[in-house]
Amino acid sequence: YKVPLDPQGLLELSWNVSYPQQIVYFQILIRDLRFGLLFGMSDRGEFENADLAVLWSDGRSSYFGDAWSDGKGRLHMDSQQDYQLLRARRAPEGLYLLFRRAFSTCDPKDYVIEDGTVHLIYGILEKPVHSLQAINISAIHRGLQRVQLLKPNITVPELPSDMKTMEITAPDVVIPSQETTYWCYVAELPDSFPKHHIIMYEPVVTAGNEALVHHMEVFQCASEFDSFPHYNGPCDSKMKPERLNYCRHVLAAWAMGAQAFYYPKEAGLAFGGPGSSRYLRLEIHYHNPLVFQGRRDSSGIRLYYTATLRRYDAGIMELGLVYTPVMAIPPGEDAFVLTGYCTDKCTQLALPAAGIRIFASQLHTHLAGRKVVTVLSRDGRERQVVNADGHYSPHFQEIRMLKEVVAVFPGDELITTCTYNTEDRSHATVGGFGILEEMCVNYVHYYPQTQLELCKSAVDLGYLRRYFNLVNRFNDEEVCTCPQVSVPQQFFSVPWNTFNRDVLKSLYGFAPISVHCNKSSALRFPGEWEKQPLPIITERLREPVPHCPPTSGSQPAAPIPLNLSELQR
Amino acid sequence: YKVPLDPQGLLELSWNVSYPQQIVYFQILIRDLRFGLLFGMSDRGEFENADLAVLWSDGRSSYFGDAWSDGKGRLHMDSQQDYQLLRARRAPEGLYLLFRRAFSTCDPKDYVIEDGTVHLIYGILEKPVHSLQAINISAIHRGLQRVQLLKPNITVPELPSDMKTMEITAPDVVIPSQETTYWCYVAELPDSFPKHHIIMYEPVVTAGNEALVHHMEVFQCASEFDSFPHYNGPCDSKMKPERLNYCRHVLAAWAMGAQAFYYPKEAGLAFGGPGSSRYLRLEIHYHNPLVFQGRRDSSGIRLYYTATLRRYDAGIMELGLVYTPVMAIPPGEDAFVLTGYCTDKCTQLALPAAGIRIFASQLHTHLAGRKVVTVLSRDGRERQVVNADGHYSPHFQEIRMLKEVVAVFPGDELITTCTYNTEDRSHATVGGFGILEEMCVNYVHYYPQTQLELCKSAVDLGYLRRYFNLVNRFNDEEVCTCPQVSVPQQFFSVPWNTFNRDVLKSLYGFAPISVHCNKSSALRFPGEWEKQPLPIITERLREPVPHCPPTSGSQPAAPIPLNLSELQR
Repeated sequence: YKVPLDPQGLLELSWNVSYPQQIVYFQILIRDLRFGLLFGMSDRGEFENADLAVLWSDGRSSYFGDAWSDGKGRLHMDSQQDYQLLRARRAPEGLYLLFRRAFSTCDPKDYVIEDGTVHLIYGILEKPVHSLQAINISAIHRGLQRVQLLKPNITVPELPSDMKTMEITAPDVVIPSQETTYWCYVAELPDSFPKHHIIMYEPVVTAGNEALVHHMEVFQCASEFDSFPHYNGPCDSKMKPERLNYCRHVLAAWAMGAQAFYYPKEAGLAFGGPGSSRYLRLEIHYHNPLVFQGRRDSSGIRLYYTATLRRYDAGIMELGLVYTPVMAIPPGEDAFVLTGYCTDKCTQLALPAAGIRIFASQLHTHLAGRKVVTVLSRDGRERQVVNADGHYSPHFQEIRMLKEVVAVFPGDELITTCTYNTEDRSHATVGGFGILEEMCVNYVHYYPQTQLELCKSAVDLGYLRRYFNLVNRFNDEEVCTCPQVSVPQQFFSVPWNTFNRDVLKSLYGFAPISVHCNKSSALRFPGEWEKQPLPIITERLREPVPHCPPTSGSQPAAPIPLNLSELQR
Repeated sequence: YKVPLDPQGLLELSWNVSYPQQIVYFQILIRDLRFGLLFGMSDRGEFENADLAVLWSDGRSSYFGDAWSDGKGRLHMDSQQDYQLLRARRAPEGLYLLFRRAFSTCDPKDYVIEDGTVHLIYGILEKPVHSLQAINISAIHRGLQRVQLLKPNITVPELPSDMKTMEITAPDVVIPSQETTYWCYVAELPDSFPKHHIIMYEPVVTAGNEALVHHMEVFQCASEFDSFPHYNGPCDSKMKPERLNYCRHVLAAWAMGAQAFYYPKEAGLAFGGPGSSRYLRLEIHYHNPLVFQGRRDSSGIRLYYTATLRRYDAGIMELGLVYTPVMAIPPGEDAFVLTGYCTDKCTQLALPAAGIRIFASQLHTHLAGRKVVTVLSRDGRERQVVNADGHYSPHFQEIRMLKEVVAVFPGDELITTCTYNTEDRSHATVGGFGILEEMCVNYVHYYPQTQLELCKSAVDLGYLRRYFNLVNRFNDEEVCTCPQVSVPQQFFSVPWNTFNRDVLKSLYGFAPISVHCNKSSALRFPGEWEKQPLPIITERLREPVPHCPPTSGSQPAAPIPLNLSELQR
């Protein structure tokens, strides 16, 4: 796996994962080595309380060591050296550093490498330093890169001989000289293109732009419209035709650090044929913090498809919370939790007796999201994590293949929990489509496709009204609970304090829910879906016990001298 | 320190504490050794999940080992042997086993010996067993004894040469042949006995009754009455004069395992003189589970006092919760927490500028109490634990000398938190005097005496009424909140569920309090004490990090063979 660390492409990270050893092997290519490098991991990309491998030089000698930074960003040598240097090698393109690190070291100062997003941080030392402690972490050239380090170890399915490819790429776009651009381009399938199965896709990134192309998605447009305008420009431009908002069905999605996406050998994603739009929308997020000017780009996604349809059509299902303001997060919270339920009643009705297989998942929240997890529960007992990201970032949403395919049967429950941080907000954040509203969604990719497009929940509105009533009566201040006022306005007027916060939390953990068990036509399956009881969980999954490497494997707490000047020559 | 383990006195435990080494040295005298002994510790005296030292014999060979019992009471050898046998010695009176154990072993299967109550358990093997695993823990003769293992290491103050003693003892009582008896006896001080200082007291236990005399207290009667009847009989007898209920001012208290109680050298407890009753009430709790008949007892307490008054009178102050039904515990809770506050405003008004020194503490709850702790907070930051018992038992309430005298200054806050278990109850437990109602009290012993007799709190009644209102409106069932109904009746009618429980918890953590900042005359200090804000804590005390002994000190996981048959000879 390979990813550029900095936007200039001076640092390039490659890595390998050994699951039997529970070790990650890192290789960093430093193109223009000055006086050293910091590389490491932290909870959300901050340089405080980070776990770091440091290469530093005082001008004569060079050293490598495992370090950590405290809450004030001061560096300390780690008592247990868990970043283990394997090799430093000079090549024409730069210096290669090869080192390894166990997933979990059981050193309390160390970061635990888990499934999901890892925030990698780097810093470049441009002056000699006489010791680790002398490094002023706030004064160096530094940055962060998000990746999924622990990619699943999937065996690539055999690809058919009649496989064809189609590139959906930007037509020689000049990347705008601004930090963030979402570029939109409409492509069209050939006339009377029959139904095919997409069985794999991979990124096509223009050479030299690896550090600028942050993520890309291909959407299929709605089949209700016969044609869509051939737009090519920024997605937020006033010139963008309204109709492009109807191109929202995900065909493919890639984010930095991801590789090719393979469908399981039994399934493919249908596109083409009757009842399917010929129009596709490519969306590219360019991340250009150094504001390069005039860079040209033709990146995009290469689809691999076959006319020999596989046994099953793959489908995408939405789990989590309904997009409604009744689910809200009080302001000033560091970790407020909301949960959406796909109930046993819905899966009982909508899933085939043989069940479905979930093989990939894309987690989604807006800006306040910090963690997302979906758990499968059967007969009240949590059985399996479908997908979890404890370091989730709304800026890094990729479709992830699951390590293990998850089988879901009629009567199972899928419980999606999101954790939010609203410390920087002064009013409640309600659910909704706006960027400052919130979502809690897991788009699961599965087969065989069913009619169930959406299985989500929200608290019962009647119980929420009782909450507003209660807040009104309990607090001395007046809260407007007049029924003509909207739910967001009612949340806006709540005088937030620990009591109102705690009671909202208790309400969400107690009140019955409204379940959305919907077909793709946005119609509910027949049945009673209002005032449903919350699923009862009698047995939780246990926290995994960290697997610690034998202590003899780690090295003593002393930096390793390197002949860097020789390597720099 | 010494305590009998069983009511027959077959097992006698002596122990020593080494604070520098963080080790307890145990010696058990086994008077009539059969085929072995279990001795150990567990959270609340249960034989499941216990930490045990086991001596067992298969009839020929004998073994000693460190073991643990699982949730089903099955015994397992511990992987780390932390009960270390030092010696086994035969004497005319029986076999002496000497072994030691670190306070904290860092073995997750081991009990951590903390300040406060420790529940010791013992079992006697009456048949040979061929292995540890073969011991059926539910079929053996077994029992429990509560002690404070970690007695404070106090240097005994010098005692004056004019010191006199006075024994308040039961007059040759025949211990009733029933499990539990509280015996009441009224004693009288000599006519015109002037003011003295009690500077020490110790138990006087009739030889042979060491295992029956559970605890004893001496109370001074109220000075409002000129005389009290000379009663001598059970405290719960119908014949007990009503007036004895006015003898409640504690002069001295002792419980099994406790030693002499010393006042600090600057202070003594005043008794005698004008304004002080000449009548004392001795209360003895006899614990006679084997229902011995006709045992005679003259136990009691020996007071050491002096006419040369020390610099300060000592005082006793009540901290915690007011005795009122507004503080209640829902049914079915395994660890519900209630907190009582002695606020900065009260200490500001009532304490002298030089502060007071707390040197001893007696924790008190009724039957549902499981933990009690009082913390000193200053400027919103928790500074010091005054007294804590994480294995508190309502059946073992002794006055404990503190390891460290705690200085309390005007403006300090004293926060007392009690944890209750109501899993066996089906209705709310309200605060009050009844044995099935609850209390949360810490009687602190301090000097110099002030007018502040009581510094406690309870939730504001108006806010509690809003809670009942809210429960009424929120739940579909009807709850009677008519104002003519009493608070206990209102709590009784709450339909308990997670929401009503959580909201009550939130209420207690949010609503303003009524502060009782009272003089000994039961009058409040002047000021506004209703609807006071809860103290704000910005910094909590950290949990102590367990100090683990070097692992080299512990022995391999194998039982140690003993030549027990030779020792039995």
